[in-house]
Amino acid sequence: MAEYSLEEVLHPRSIAVVGASDEGRGSQFFGTLVEFGFKGILYPVNPKYSEVMKIKAYPTVKDIPDPVDFVISAAPAPQVPQIMRDCVQKGVKGIHLFTARFSETGREDAAELERHILRIAKEGGVRIIGPNCMGVYYPKMGMAFQPQFPKVSGTLALASQSGQAAGEIISKTTQRGAYFNKAISYGNAIDFNEADFLEYFAADPEVKVIMMYIEGPKDGSRFFNMLREVTRTKPVVIIKGGRGQAGTRATASHTASLAGATEIWNTMINQSGAVSVGSIDELVDVAVSFHFLPPITGRRAGVAAGAGGATVLAADQCEEAGLDVVPLPQEIREVLRSQGVQIWDWISNPADFSINMGDEGFGPAELLKMMAMNPNFDLIIASVNIPGWGGPPGSRGRPGGGGRGRSGGGGPPWANLNLTPGEIVNQYKQIADYKPVLGLLQDRSPVADSDDLAYEDERWKTVCEVTAKLIENNIPYYPTVSRAASAANKVINYYQQRESKG
Amino acid sequence: MAEYSLEEVLHPRSIAVVGASDEGRGSQFFGTLVEFGFKGILYPVNPKYSEVMKIKAYPTVKDIPDPVDFVISAAPAPQVPQIMRDCVQKGVKGIHLFTARFSETGREDAAELERHILRIAKEGGVRIIGPNCMGVYYPKMGMAFQPQFPKVSGTLALASQSGQAAGEIISKTTQRGAYFNKAISYGNAIDFNEADFLEYFAADPEVKVIMMYIEGPKDGSRFFNMLREVTRTKPVVIIKGGRGQAGTRATASHTASLAGATEIWNTMINQSGAVSVGSIDELVDVAVSFHFLPPITGRRAGVAAGAGGATVLAADQCEEAGLDVVPLPQEIREVLRSQGVQIWDWISNPADFSINMGDEGFGPAELLKMMAMNPNFDLIIASVNIPGWGGPPGSRGRPGGGGRGRSGGGGPPWANLNLTPGEIVNQYKQIADYKPVLGLLQDRSPVADSDDLAYEDERWKTVCEVTAKLIENNIPYYPTVSRAASAANKVINYYQQRESKG
Repeated sequence: MAEYSLEEVLHPRSIAVVGASDEGRGSQFFGTLVEFGFKGILYPVNPKYSEVMKIKAYPTVKDIPDPVDFVISAAPAPQVPQIMRDCVQKGVKGIHLFTARFSETGREDAAELERHILRIAKEGGVRIIGPNCMGVYYPKMGMAFQPQFPKVSGTLALASQSGQAAGEIISKTTQRGAYFNKAISYGNAIDFNEADFLEYFAADPEVKVIMMYIEGPKDGSRFFNMLREVTRTKPVVIIKGGRGQAGTRATASHTASLAGATEIWNTMINQSGAVSVGSIDELVDVAVSFHFLPPITGRRAGVAAGAGGATVLAADQCEEAGLDVVPLPQEIREVLRSQGVQIWDWISNPADFSINMGDEGFGPAELLKMMAMNPNFDLIIASVNIPGWGGPPGSRGRPGGGGRGRSGGGGPPWANLNLTPGEIVNQYKQIADYKPVLGLLQDRSPVADSDDLAYEDERWKTVCEVTAKLIENNIPYYPTVSRAASAANKVINYYQQRESKG
Repeated sequence: MAEYSLEEVLHPRSIAVVGASDEGRGSQFFGTLVEFGFKGILYPVNPKYSEVMKIKAYPTVKDIPDPVDFVISAAPAPQVPQIMRDCVQKGVKGIHLFTARFSETGREDAAELERHILRIAKEGGVRIIGPNCMGVYYPKMGMAFQPQFPKVSGTLALASQSGQAAGEIISKTTQRGAYFNKAISYGNAIDFNEADFLEYFAADPEVKVIMMYIEGPKDGSRFFNMLREVTRTKPVVIIKGGRGQAGTRATASHTASLAGATEIWNTMINQSGAVSVGSIDELVDVAVSFHFLPPITGRRAGVAAGAGGATVLAADQCEEAGLDVVPLPQEIREVLRSQGVQIWDWISNPADFSINMGDEGFGPAELLKMMAMNPNFDLIIASVNIPGWGGPPGSRGRPGGGGRGRSGGGGPPWANLNLTPGEIVNQYKQIADYKPVLGLLQDRSPVADSDDLAYEDERWKTVCEVTAKLIENNIPYYPTVSRAASAANKVINYYQQRESKG
């Protein structure tokens, strides 16, 4: 019997959720599928209830009168062999085992139970995602494992050994305006593994960027061989969980993975042309960059990322990330001089607009546009000016004259602080017409003072309005210069390596 | 004539602000001193007005009938020689030159004007802070340069060549609950320089931790000699602006500094026993750690920083930062076993509470307390659980059942999500009774969706309540595991190096 493929498993006409209930853990998977509007038929399975969420429930999968393509098991581990036998009998194509406490416990009886389950599935032709994982998020099919995930479909794909990491990655990536076609949390990977997911995403025409969280590859040589091919056409961004001693111990008790030697892993990843990252935030930054930015192959950056010391540190941090912060070209200086700009010989790259005392008749948007149009620059990194949101000491035009809020003293460089969110983003768009532009929008730290909180809530609304407009216009943003520069550098490395592979 | 000392200059009985006005740039310094309740007498100086903010104004410093100890100049550069001559005649002790456009412009005439001003001051016995800087923040004296700075006095000191950096550092550090005794932005440093400030802070009994932002040291050998001594008793945390090529160019046009070779700088800093950092955020993290934590000399960390994959990555990031994430000691396992905890042989360090299905009868607080009491641990890094704020997939007890907000999918590990901010911080206090504890409280990223915004505003209030209570209890917090671990590691390095110096 030919095995069912991932493509078949991920397009079920019906799903049964074993352990479904109206409340508690058993409600999550079933409730989310209902909430998401799964396109096919849903069956709650629970011997304790005659209905779940007003839908007729069955005691076992076998009792369902119609065909069942996919099963989600939220039942305790000891019940899984029987559930699997029912699935075999019912002709189920694939099962997602949310059920945990198998080999990851480090206990031999639990590991044997896992092997036993795999044998039943293999013999009966049922494919397994998991166990010990959150399963499938596939918005187009109406499949998800957290009700708050967006219903919007996109062009990213994710395979994650960790369910927590999958949730965090999906939340943070979609919050930045890049959406998923498919994301799969696959846990202990006793059947489908990282190589299967990579192969599937590589062939999927709807997927443009592939993200992976891997603790221990199950089929390393197939995976790395495939990776070398896939990266010729699609960027693959990978985070490795379990890089050190303690992390390796943690992967064993998390997904029963043998994390393996970090140096070998790093060498393999680098040779494969994939992009390696060290944190979820970096994974998201790089994926968002691939999603929104056109291919960039040069690293000469034009930067306007703060006033005074922030300008100096932005230069340092961009260079340390691998970018080339080139001097302001003489032809731009000459244009400024001819326009009567007093600081023509002083303003530089990175541009520090705290030296613009308001008598210059030009601002950051004008200079950045000149940089963007100039052939000496490959990309632009530019901070977003939020009226009243920080700003350099002594900023003119700050609403409320000084204000009470204390955060953001390192604020943004735009001279004209009276712009609306729409006007700000219009300035970005003018730059983005000529060169890839990475925006900067600071995160917000908690404040202890409730007066400050009330004041900053108002400013935060404006920040969020700018965010929405940036996303609408396909402009990515980052919370710090370092993160923007590091993401840009990794994207550039990828395209350069791909080019050199031919 | 003996020169006035910093101690004398920083304790004026009266201040005149040249260029003071009711509105615009000229209002900032004068208005802030009024707002801050400067302890001595204030004189606005401006030939254009007879009064400023209802206070009698004088055309020049000379016209003030009573003694003037300190002057702030917000007048344009060409007027400064005459102002300086007036100060000499008036017997002024010190002047803060906010006035800019001197040597930092790179223009010879501006550099000559700067030298000219220094000659007048030196001959007349007037000391200079600046030019091209924001000057003095000294809350005890009622002196400040931004009205929103806290009026609370603390035990930190800052000397910063950049005014923007000073503002950002003061904002971010005080937001974390650590306050300043004195902070000075000193710009081009033509008179008082980094060595003078370091010497002064070293001798100041009210100062416990010294922070510095330096672009180019003016008196390097004196500075480094002094640094070696100071670090025997007080931590000095230093960020260098202008580390690379572009940064060095930027320091020249910012504070006319010759940034110098980074490698030599790094070697000197490391040998001196000072702590070197690469970003303002890191500077703040390390200073806050020195402020709140007792001396730590061992690097064995107990960690509970998230569920599942976040646990694995926390282990990696702690190790990569230099900490030692030791295995859970057998004696703790035995206690758990004797208490009937099912996961006694599986729960580890870092502790992953996503494997606690609620039937264990114990939670993160209990385990962390056992770690804190155990001699195998030197410090604890622990995430804060905010009810409804993220949480691992499928968290029980999440208010509103699932909720709408999308951020924070990588949430905190505390199993009991129904704790109040007071209860959460009480759990921290119990841990902090035994070992230094570093809390984790995620920053907030902007959201594009206004429904999400409204939902998250509610959760943010809770986060801010926790923040306030952590600060009340002298517990530092950090936005990410990496930042907490890196700060802890630098603090430990400092104390170990200090110990070895004897």
